[in-house]
Amino acid sequence: MNRNDVTEKIVTAKVAKGIQWAEVAEQVGLSKEWTTAACLGQMTLDEKQAAIVGGIFGLTAEEQKWLQVVPYKGSLPSAVPTDPLIYRWYEIVNVYGTTIKELIHEEFGDGIMSAIDFSMDIQRQADPKGDRVNVVLSGKFLPYKTY
Amino acid sequence: MNRNDVTEKIVTAKVAKGIQWAEVAEQVGLSKEWTTAACLGQMTLDEKQAAIVGGIFGLTAEEQKWLQVVPYKGSLPSAVPTDPLIYRWYEIVNVYGTTIKELIHEEFGDGIMSAIDFSMDIQRQADPKGDRVNVVLSGKFLPYKTY
Amino acid sequence: MNRNDVTEKIVTAKVAKGIQWAEVAEQVGLSKEWTTAACLGQMTLDEKQAAIVGGIFGLTAEEQKWLQVVPYKGSLPSAVPTDPLIYRWYEIVNVYGTTIKELIHEEFGDGIMSAIDFSMDIQRQADPKGDRVNVVLSGKFLPYKTY
Amino acid sequence: MNRNDVTEKIVTAKVAKGIQWAEVAEQVGLSKEWTTAACLGQMTLDEKQAAIVGGIFGLTAEEQKWLQVVPYKGSLPSAVPTDPLIYRWYEIVNVYGTTIKELIHEEFGDGIMSAIDFSMDIQRQADPKGDRVNVVLSGKFLPYKTY
Amino acid sequence: MNRNDVTEKIVTAKVAKGIQWAEVAEQVGLSKEWTTAACLGQMTLDEKQAAIVGGIFGLTAEEQKWLQVVPYKGSLPSAVPTDPLIYRWYEIVNVYGTTIKELIHEEFGDGIMSAIDFSMDIQRQADPKGDRVNVVLSGKFLPYKTY
Amino acid sequence: MNRNDVTEKIVTAKVAKGIQWAEVAEQVGLSKEWTTAACLGQMTLDEKQAAIVGGIFGLTAEEQKWLQVVPYKGSLPSAVPTDPLIYRWYEIVNVYGTTIKELIHEEFGDGIMSAIDFSMDIQRQADPKGDRVNVVLSGKFLPYKTY
Amino acid sequence: MNRNDVTEKIVTAKVAKGIQWAEVAEQVGLSKEWTTAACLGQMTLDEKQAAIVGGIFGLTAEEQKWLQVVPYKGSLPSAVPTDPLIYRWYEIVNVYGTTIKELIHEEFGDGIMSAIDFSMDIQRQADPKGDRVNVVLSGKFLPYKTY
Amino acid sequence: MNRNDVTEKIVTAKVAKGIQWAEVAEQVGLSKEWTTAACLGQMTLDEKQAAIVGGIFGLTAEEQKWLQVVPYKGSLPSAVPTDPLIYRWYEIVNVYGTTIKELIHEEFGDGIMSAIDFSMDIQRQADPKGDRVNVVLSGKFLPYKTY
Amino acid sequence: MNRNDVTEKIVTAKVAKGIQWAEVAEQVGLSKEWTTAACLGQMTLDEKQAAIVGGIFGLTAEEQKWLQVVPYKGSLPSAVPTDPLIYRWYEIVNVYGTTIKELIHEEFGDGIMSAIDFSMDIQRQADPKGDRVNVVLSGKFLPYKTY
Amino acid sequence: MNRNDVTEKIVTAKVAKGIQWAEVAEQVGLSKEWTTAACLGQMTLDEKQAAIVGGIFGLTAEEQKWLQVVPYKGSLPSAVPTDPLIYRWYEIVNVYGTTIKELIHEEFGDGIMSAIDFSMDIQRQADPKGDRVNVVLSGKFLPYKTY
Repeated sequence: MNRNDVTEKIVTAKVAKGIQWAEVAEQVGLSKEWTTAACLGQMTLDEKQAAIVGGIFGLTAEEQKWLQVVPYKGSLPSAVPTDPLIYRWYEIVNVYGTTIKELIHEEFGDGIMSAIDFSMDIQRQADPKGDRVNVVLSGKFLPYKTY
Repeated sequence: MNRNDVTEKIVTAKVAKGIQWAEVAEQVGLSKEWTTAACLGQMTLDEKQAAIVGGIFGLTAEEQKWLQVVPYKGSLPSAVPTDPLIYRWYEIVNVYGTTIKELIHEEFGDGIMSAIDFSMDIQRQADPKGDRVNVVLSGKFLPYKTY
Repeated sequence: MNRNDVTEKIVTAKVAKGIQWAEVAEQVGLSKEWTTAACLGQMTLDEKQAAIVGGIFGLTAEEQKWLQVVPYKGSLPSAVPTDPLIYRWYEIVNVYGTTIKELIHEEFGDGIMSAIDFSMDIQRQADPKGDRVNVVLSGKFLPYKTY
Repeated sequence: MNRNDVTEKIVTAKVAKGIQWAEVAEQVGLSKEWTTAACLGQMTLDEKQAAIVGGIFGLTAEEQKWLQVVPYKGSLPSAVPTDPLIYRWYEIVNVYGTTIKELIHEEFGDGIMSAIDFSMDIQRQADPKGDRVNVVLSGKFLPYKTY
Repeated sequence: MNRNDVTEKIVTAKVAKGIQWAEVAEQVGLSKEWTTAACLGQMTLDEKQAAIVGGIFGLTAEEQKWLQVVPYKGSLPSAVPTDPLIYRWYEIVNVYGTTIKELIHEEFGDGIMSAIDFSMDIQRQADPKGDRVNVVLSGKFLPYKTY
Repeated sequence: MNRNDVTEKIVTAKVAKGIQWAEVAEQVGLSKEWTTAACLGQMTLDEKQAAIVGGIFGLTAEEQKWLQVVPYKGSLPSAVPTDPLIYRWYEIVNVYGTTIKELIHEEFGDGIMSAIDFSMDIQRQADPKGDRVNVVLSGKFLPYKTY
Repeated sequence: MNRNDVTEKIVTAKVAKGIQWAEVAEQVGLSKEWTTAACLGQMTLDEKQAAIVGGIFGLTAEEQKWLQVVPYKGSLPSAVPTDPLIYRWYEIVNVYGTTIKELIHEEFGDGIMSAIDFSMDIQRQADPKGDRVNVVLSGKFLPYKTY
Repeated sequence: MNRNDVTEKIVTAKVAKGIQWAEVAEQVGLSKEWTTAACLGQMTLDEKQAAIVGGIFGLTAEEQKWLQVVPYKGSLPSAVPTDPLIYRWYEIVNVYGTTIKELIHEEFGDGIMSAIDFSMDIQRQADPKGDRVNVVLSGKFLPYKTY
Repeated sequence: MNRNDVTEKIVTAKVAKGIQWAEVAEQVGLSKEWTTAACLGQMTLDEKQAAIVGGIFGLTAEEQKWLQVVPYKGSLPSAVPTDPLIYRWYEIVNVYGTTIKELIHEEFGDGIMSAIDFSMDIQRQADPKGDRVNVVLSGKFLPYKTY
Repeated sequence: MNRNDVTEKIVTAKVAKGIQWAEVAEQVGLSKEWTTAACLGQMTLDEKQAAIVGGIFGLTAEEQKWLQVVPYKGSLPSAVPTDPLIYRWYEIVNVYGTTIKELIHEEFGDGIMSAIDFSMDIQRQADPKGDRVNVVLSGKFLPYKTY
């Protein structure tokens, strides 16, 4: 058994039972973004969170233990994603990558925006021309250390 | 001559003269994100915008014309970026890619978040534990058409 | 269980029973192009469509639910396709890619032809020198937004 | 000197003089698609066509000779294109590849749609919901030979 | 079930029973080259041919149907083949590729040698210095169309 | 200076002067296939051959010396060729690779067809349905040695 | 001009003048590891540091400005390094990668060892069996945030 | 059965039983770094060590024999690791690779730091600003031999 | 069943029974290098050799037949090997590749060292400074043919 | 200036003057294998050796200094070499890689054959069936350390 087996069991149960990620998040008591990532095998739950998720998706005690093990992260099957929705994000990184770099350095100096001390919030933004996906990314700025 | 030559000339002039992207954006009258992307060879300026940018960076009339030609986009030298700041964004796509996909589909159904009818806003968010980079991405949701 | 399992079951049933994609499309009431893509795991059906497809290919209730889940898209096993028919399309993109880009930009300015708000129609065109494959692609033009 | 040098000279002259591909095609007397591909280094012109193109873009006699040499074709710098407009075409091949294969084989049997005995026509299609790019691809069907 | 399963069953039966490809070809009534390619999952048989092949290798009715479905072609597990015999052919394409291109274009103009309307004949050529493999490739020349 | 420089000079002179490879081969006294490969930087000429080639293309004494140095072989810019004519050959290797392997082993046992003790002959074969490219490849069979 | 030009000028001057990195570091007043990385185009110097480095290597005022611009980081020409010394480090990551991951997670939980708030110290460790390279890496542990 | 099967069994048992690597190492009597690497399929145990590890994780006699066979090393599923913790190490190699090379050569001359006669020690270093991961790498310097 | 299945069975039996390759070679009556390569699925045995190998490893009659079929060669799972022992050989090819090429051409002219009419002998060479691996490679020189 | 420039100058002088590597090695007083590798930019010379090489090839004092700097090693332009002579070595590693690994481990246990404390000797071996290239590789065995 490994974490992928648990992820597949969760996703299969989700389809079979028609569970929504937002409902899962509500029960876990964290954001839907973090909770979904955890259920998809990218984050680590504590014992109590694992029990809640295990209850929703019908996981065994051993499967719940796997949710508490730090996974080998990375959710995509290829370096350049083929799925159109995920590709658009890769395209943003590809087209705007140097722009993002320039502007963060202009504001903060040399360093990075953390992808660890990081949160994401995805919302629908109503718009008469067609609703928009509104995403807020927040990452701590970490300056390069001199030594 | 090609667009890359013009981009290099812009970047060289920026370093030599100590120009800030935010100042350029203010003179162009658009966001610093779009303006920087345009100066870095990813967006297309109109004649008036090109003249302003040309004035700031000392571009010839022919170089200004290149700013008005749609460029071959893509700002990174390799499929997986090596620069740490840009890599963190690639990592977000890699780790959270399936999460983003699930949540947008849960809210909107099948389709994508546009990377064309799209805007980005990068801000410093003061935080006592260390300032944060706050980024808002807004893209129109485009549903898959059945036919 | 996952969407690939359902796709394989559909294709196996198709060969065993000698079903034509055109017949499936007629029963679903949509184009043969969209219907085939959906059966091959690239599009999302609604409940009613899934029931029709499920009836034709002998799918269980759970398998029909999978047809209603947005799939991870991308139908090819390698970045450059090895199958000669599909390669010819890749070759068209490779040889004519910059031409397509130039002509769409000459007509419409900076932007893209949507692959989401998109339709395709494949027809036989009788020709005394040898029949031709006639394909009409129609995609909404999406201009790059300035902001 | 090689064909790429001639292509770059053509593109540089086009930007400097503001030439339209449609005008070039009209003078050459062929479609704008074929003519643009030829000017971008993908097709071979005859002596008369080369003289017309040479006149428009100010090419020397030797440069005109290069237009008459069969080029090493392939217009993209990477196997998966980074430019969003061209990527959308790659995405169509990736998402719809197996669909296209199934439907052409269902209609014609084993074989391919030629990318050589092939033509393409790109048109603007007015649409109140937003104009569309309409592309007609026509390729001779070539059946696999048994022997 | 898919075509690969059928190919593996054929190859397993061939080893177990000691069948020769030349014998199969004789019974099918076509060349050993085409027949072997078909048995290895690269070509499409008609019903009668599939019955003969099925009889030789002990295939079920459903497996024989798979032989009549156009396969996803491409017989090699990697872009650059590792097997020394097949690599030598790749090497010929790599070393002589531009030579082949130059000479076919010198004789025929712009176009290709078809890999579809194509045949291959592999023969032993006795030679006192060591026998030779003699291969004749014959492909229709297809000129690029202007339009 | 390196061999590529000499190859480019040869090709540039060929275009400028309208030289045919067949004429060069006739003067060198070898096949057009070997001679073209040598001029394109894949084979090694002896002093006399180099002098003849040097005379035709206007090479200096030093450039003629480079023709006598064994080159780093490989004439293609990417592992999978993008040029349609050369790709068709790659496709033949990809589709027929395992077939070629099976048939040569069936006839000769374990070993390879040499790409070194090898010759190639490319001819036009008149055909009322469209002329064909006829290629004869002849390579010595080299059996694997046991030891 | 770009940062690579400055790096090349520094390295060329180093060879010509026989400068040691340790001497440069001493004058800059920082570790030899950080200073070398900065001179090789991976770190950002402040004005004063740039003046010292510029003095040592004979850089112009504009070149010194480039040292103060955040560079596009990544010092290796290929994803898997070919140089044996650097490869050994890649091998350590490849062989011990999952071990490092397990042990850091066992001690600290889910998170990473920072490569930004990071320092490195390389020392010779005398050893009668052959001197050893002793490297101390120190990176702040950054726990994954839940939200 | 192969070594990967044994590794998976070990990891599954570890999760089910809540075993710590440090405990395993204590029982084996070697460092936690070497012991973990061995359990993860990268090192070779002797009979006695294999018996201890086998006892802890419930391995059969045959599985214990596999622990004594030299494994095919390499613990990562892709050339560039996707897991953020392991990527940071790859990033260190990528950003600091040339720096490490310069400084080791400056101190020792041409040669490498061994990854075989090598040890690693990972420790928590308490720090009021946030604890740090402290890693000591020690590898014998191996000078290039002249001959 | 395929050759890989037979190879895995051989390797599993070897571990379970503690068989040495040198013993197998002695019974087969050929070198340990060729015999090991054959058992690992890279060479073709005759009926008698297959019976001996089958006896040692407990193979069925059908499995022995697979040993007599020419295998698809190539023993490594990736283009650049990750295992340190095998990587060192790849490194030798990478670092010394052009040297080997120069020296063989200096001695023999244009051609190759055969990897087919080839033998290898691996021996321990006692050395007070540490024993050495001594490998003798012997390949027939094959000159390029002119034609 | 960099080491590649010096290598190119050496190779250009070698062709122009008709220098043999064996002669260079004799003057340097080391093997032809090491000397050639050094001249091709893979090894580091001391001052005296650099002076001798510089004298032979007409190098300036600065160029001789570059010969004394440890180079970034790796002599091949692609991960899988395209040149047939070098490819045959890559093929040996690919086909015999696991065999080499098994036999060295059977003799020595876990560890590697050094590519640093390593020498190579390439000789012509006269043979009535065709002369052979005889290569002796000698590398110190380095056992994996436990700690």
